[in-house]
Amino acid sequence: MADYTFYTNPMSRGQIVRWALHEAGAGYEQVLVDWKDKPQAFLAANPMGKVPTIVHHAEEGDRVVTEAAAICLYLAEMHPEAGLLPNDAETADYYRWTLFAAGPIEQSITSRALKFEPRPEQEMLAGWGSFERTIDAIDAKLEGAVWICGERFTMADVYVGSSIDWGMTFGIIPPRPALVAYAERCQSRPAYKAAKAIDGKLIEEMKK
Amino acid sequence: MADYTFYTNPMSRGQIVRWALHEAGAGYEQVLVDWKDKPQAFLAANPMGKVPTIVHHAEEGDRVVTEAAAICLYLAEMHPEAGLLPNDAETADYYRWTLFAAGPIEQSITSRALKFEPRPEQEMLAGWGSFERTIDAIDAKLEGAVWICGERFTMADVYVGSSIDWGMTFGIIPPRPALVAYAERCQSRPAYKAAKAIDGKLIEEMKK
Repeated sequence: MADYTFYTNPMSRGQIVRWALHEAGAGYEQVLVDWKDKPQAFLAANPMGKVPTIVHHAEEGDRVVTEAAAICLYLAEMHPEAGLLPNDAETADYYRWTLFAAGPIEQSITSRALKFEPRPEQEMLAGWGSFERTIDAIDAKLEGAVWICGERFTMADVYVGSSIDWGMTFGIIPPRPALVAYAERCQSRPAYKAAKAIDGKLIEEMKK
Repeated sequence: MADYTFYTNPMSRGQIVRWALHEAGAGYEQVLVDWKDKPQAFLAANPMGKVPTIVHHAEEGDRVVTEAAAICLYLAEMHPEAGLLPNDAETADYYRWTLFAAGPIEQSITSRALKFEPRPEQEMLAGWGSFERTIDAIDAKLEGAVWICGERFTMADVYVGSSIDWGMTFGIIPPRPALVAYAERCQSRPAYKAAKAIDGKLIEEMKK
């Protein structure tokens, strides 16, 4: 049995997790979940029925992890040999920007996609403030850095890179030079290519 | 000089971070930030101008951390002696529910407060799905657990507990028995009481 069961759909945030699994070198069995007819074992693991979800078959029992960013952080911890964890000095950037992507960037993209954005007087309540200030912040960060933690790729890049990659593909994040260059660095990772090839093929098959 | 500079406003998500600082036993100097006239040193650290922000004055240089959840995770790492980090078996729940609070719970509360909620056909795009399913998920989790990682308080409880505490105080999260009982367990922590007493006093002074 593989160490992980990976519940996903190729057209979902599961693409982030597949890239993370490949970066970590984790062995996984994939279970494709349709929007209808969700498998019972999946709903038992995650009653919300959201993909991606992973079940880690650890020695002392199964562990369920949901939320794409949490799965990334978890896999980095479970596979220290993959070198995706931050060192002491990198820890601040690692958490800061992973959570910046899980919070402000995610909310900026979603609210714009759903055509709802806070009015100026609502910006304090909305944790992301405004779309422009959010994009400005990550753009400024990436103008001065190769990777989120500096010179070295870490798991933070899987999550932040996926957010930016997806936001630009979706036409919501503007293709500013620093963001495009960063997305290209992410796309050149062998694990990114391997993971995207699998999801790309699955999407092709779904269209038949 | 204290180890941390803590930029906050008592009426903000800075309350989460103050509780985290007290749980970690971290020494900090507080800088109150008004919505207008933000200090230059603060804007240099965080150009978005969002509180809470911490600057950790580490030996090799300053490290900035933004996003309340990231600051919680960071402080737990920097202060292992406080016992707020998960052990191996607790790591899945630790990240899963911290990110569940930073993502779905935060977005559920914000979207309801801003009177914007996705229509059924938009739920797939919106990562949190729906308000009801989000609350059901955390309610089911807390019906079966004392703390997020089981029998032991960890930093995940500072962030998840703050989200639920704030959502109920704000009148948005319904006061279901398991959520109320969990919030009360959080409120009984000495560090919670110490932190809230400081912010409560600052809020009183602001009203004068």
